[in-house]
Amino acid sequence: MAALEDIDQSDARRHRVVIIGAGFGGLFAARALRGAPVDVTVIDRTNHHLFQPLLYQVATGVLSEGDIAPPTRDILRHQKNVRVLLGEVVGIDLAAHEVVLETLDRQSRIAFDSLIVAAGAAPSYFGHDEFAASAPGMKTIDDALELRGRIFGAFEMAELESELERRDAWLTFAVVGGGPTGVELAGQIAELSRRALKRNYRAFNPRIARVILIDAGDAVLATFPESLRRRARRDLERLGVEVRLGTVVTGVDIEGLDMKSRDGSVRRVEAYTKVWAAGVQASALGAMLAEQSGAEVDRAGRVQVLPDCTLPGHREVFVVGDLMSLNRLPGLSEVAMQSGVHAARTIARRLKGDTGERAFRYRDLGTMATISRFSAVVSIGRIRVAGFVGWVMWLVVHLAFLTGFKNRFAAVLNWAVAFLGRRRRQRTITEQQVFARTRALEQPEAPAAAFPPAG
Amino acid sequence: MAALEDIDQSDARRHRVVIIGAGFGGLFAARALRGAPVDVTVIDRTNHHLFQPLLYQVATGVLSEGDIAPPTRDILRHQKNVRVLLGEVVGIDLAAHEVVLETLDRQSRIAFDSLIVAAGAAPSYFGHDEFAASAPGMKTIDDALELRGRIFGAFEMAELESELERRDAWLTFAVVGGGPTGVELAGQIAELSRRALKRNYRAFNPRIARVILIDAGDAVLATFPESLRRRARRDLERLGVEVRLGTVVTGVDIEGLDMKSRDGSVRRVEAYTKVWAAGVQASALGAMLAEQSGAEVDRAGRVQVLPDCTLPGHREVFVVGDLMSLNRLPGLSEVAMQSGVHAARTIARRLKGDTGERAFRYRDLGTMATISRFSAVVSIGRIRVAGFVGWVMWLVVHLAFLTGFKNRFAAVLNWAVAFLGRRRRQRTITEQQVFARTRALEQPEAPAAAFPPAG
Repeated sequence: MAALEDIDQSDARRHRVVIIGAGFGGLFAARALRGAPVDVTVIDRTNHHLFQPLLYQVATGVLSEGDIAPPTRDILRHQKNVRVLLGEVVGIDLAAHEVVLETLDRQSRIAFDSLIVAAGAAPSYFGHDEFAASAPGMKTIDDALELRGRIFGAFEMAELESELERRDAWLTFAVVGGGPTGVELAGQIAELSRRALKRNYRAFNPRIARVILIDAGDAVLATFPESLRRRARRDLERLGVEVRLGTVVTGVDIEGLDMKSRDGSVRRVEAYTKVWAAGVQASALGAMLAEQSGAEVDRAGRVQVLPDCTLPGHREVFVVGDLMSLNRLPGLSEVAMQSGVHAARTIARRLKGDTGERAFRYRDLGTMATISRFSAVVSIGRIRVAGFVGWVMWLVVHLAFLTGFKNRFAAVLNWAVAFLGRRRRQRTITEQQVFARTRALEQPEAPAAAFPPAG
Repeated sequence: MAALEDIDQSDARRHRVVIIGAGFGGLFAARALRGAPVDVTVIDRTNHHLFQPLLYQVATGVLSEGDIAPPTRDILRHQKNVRVLLGEVVGIDLAAHEVVLETLDRQSRIAFDSLIVAAGAAPSYFGHDEFAASAPGMKTIDDALELRGRIFGAFEMAELESELERRDAWLTFAVVGGGPTGVELAGQIAELSRRALKRNYRAFNPRIARVILIDAGDAVLATFPESLRRRARRDLERLGVEVRLGTVVTGVDIEGLDMKSRDGSVRRVEAYTKVWAAGVQASALGAMLAEQSGAEVDRAGRVQVLPDCTLPGHREVFVVGDLMSLNRLPGLSEVAMQSGVHAARTIARRLKGDTGERAFRYRDLGTMATISRFSAVVSIGRIRVAGFVGWVMWLVVHLAFLTGFKNRFAAVLNWAVAFLGRRRRQRTITEQQVFARTRALEQPEAPAAAFPPAG
């Protein structure tokens, strides 16, 4: 028997639930199983739950990584029927009812009676994975810290650069993708250059920094109502962001990117700092599930599930969140949470003898995105709010979320102070990052992240 | 002429001061030149000033890196006669009055009329640099983040480990060196395991973690008065730290370390997490200065200076802080600050026509070290304080320091809340760290930090 079975302290008669992923879907499923007569194992390849909607604030120096990434085991520490394991799931064996966990220097198998797969999604480069080194995505803490180093590092380099063309390239920031993440990032970088970095440099005024937001579609925030899309675009442009719509990125390299407009014209922009927020690809576990169950997988790799979020032919296996394809629901944290809770409640119901099927019903609580400090767009049902009132609503919702995790008082306080203040308190660049960037520029053809030994 | 001269906006008639290093010595020198008729260039290889006395709190999850590492240029942003450059000084040409800066992908030369060398020190492994990969030092933000990943990662791995011997090795933490850094780290790791991580694990109780503090001498905090040394040792042992004095570390590898007692007996401890806080080696710039000036260098690489902190035969060159050897002054932040200020004032005095020599006089403001929350030892002149009162004094001094930097209100508030609370808010491990550790264990003979591509 595999090693991890040995530390499974569960009574053999208890129903075993394995949850893959500690994002919104997995975490909310685990919490909803509180008090249920089950033994829960949560597996994630990081030690933290990530409050992804605020990831862009880590990348732009407002918050520290700890502020938005509390350890999963700490959040769940009072829930005695849950254990949390750090590791990567590399296989799911539906016939044997086991998942294969790779952790430390070995593999182990963990048995389940019910399985909730909440493995989420990663950035998609639409077949151009070679873009990744030059334009990292924005899905993990590693991504955000990498981007933080690149953004603040770019301003450092601009101060050192005497060739004007190169200085301009250091001060040009390209954000690919006009969804909430792209919009919020572009807005924050613009604010950074216009306000937070004032008087920090002697060789240039940071206000001259260019922030370019590129999207292939007709609007930013395409999933929002028309009036808010227009408002968001106007607010971004007022902040100084250049919004390029109907524009496809055809090439990305370490020094810039190539774009193609609808009229076929091609342009190049020299930009040393680029972010990819254009699309997502569901976890490879989706394809693995589909292969074994015959379920369909859509273009983004999401698994088509039955109305109750279960895998066709495997009612003990649930797929939730960004990995789930159901009723064209969008990849929002709110969908992940609600589908995770639905899966958990279904398991608890069945254990009580209620085995009837109940379809997952998504309750749309609205969507929101901040453009800048004191300005956000909010869409709830038929209500549309923009500007300061929208921002206050955004603030209240995010504060409520953060405080939802017990004892997060300090984080909330920290966040409020940091966010209301003009300054960016988290601007640290590591020596490793400086070294890696320098190397990358010296040898553009080498892999971009050839890190030196640490410590 | 080199590139960086082009962005030197200084009036040619102004006296040019170059400061190497933005630690306590360099930063306080730059600040003391406020209002002087000089153009100051501060060069550092990181973007931040580091409040090193609290580095151990980053390593143990109390504070974020941003809390103790404000950007140097932000601290100095209102001081218009200062520019800050990110880069590494790889040469000093005393005859030509130039320093050679390596930055971006090229070298440049920067001319000075006066030079303040405050390049500090790095960990010393006393000829065993191969220890570094297994036992990182504690001098930089990179070190602290690396150690943070290793400490919290070790508890994660212990939760996964079924072989008892290996689990014990994951839960054994060895700190080499009983000075303030070693004592504070050992105390914090013990507190972590006894209090902050309560209820976080299912396979073991974190209280069983072993923390071993090793020192070759007869006491911890050897520079403190006898009564405080004993008190510190007693407090550490009460916390659960095993204090091994008179013990020399003779070998360090990825799985543990070898120790030799005074009686010649040899022991091995299996400990996957080790920190090196045993000694320092001054920057290599010291030897470079000595070679060109004929000054002496002591065993730790520090440059013997004249009583006014200048290099023999080069009264325009000052050596301050940890790189300076003068009157057996210890390597304390207080010495660095005061010598940096002395150098700056000497330059300002000379420009006013007062060229008389004035010796540097160190004003001993005392030393202090925290053992645990609510307990510290403090020595000021003849006063000796230990326990809670000592801790309050420690707190007041450190708060005063942090608030010394304008607008650090948020950091102080954050710190107070974090430090008074039981929880550790900054426990993030990056995926890169998890990956690197796993690889290192799989291939113990390979370099320990073969990082995967980021982003």
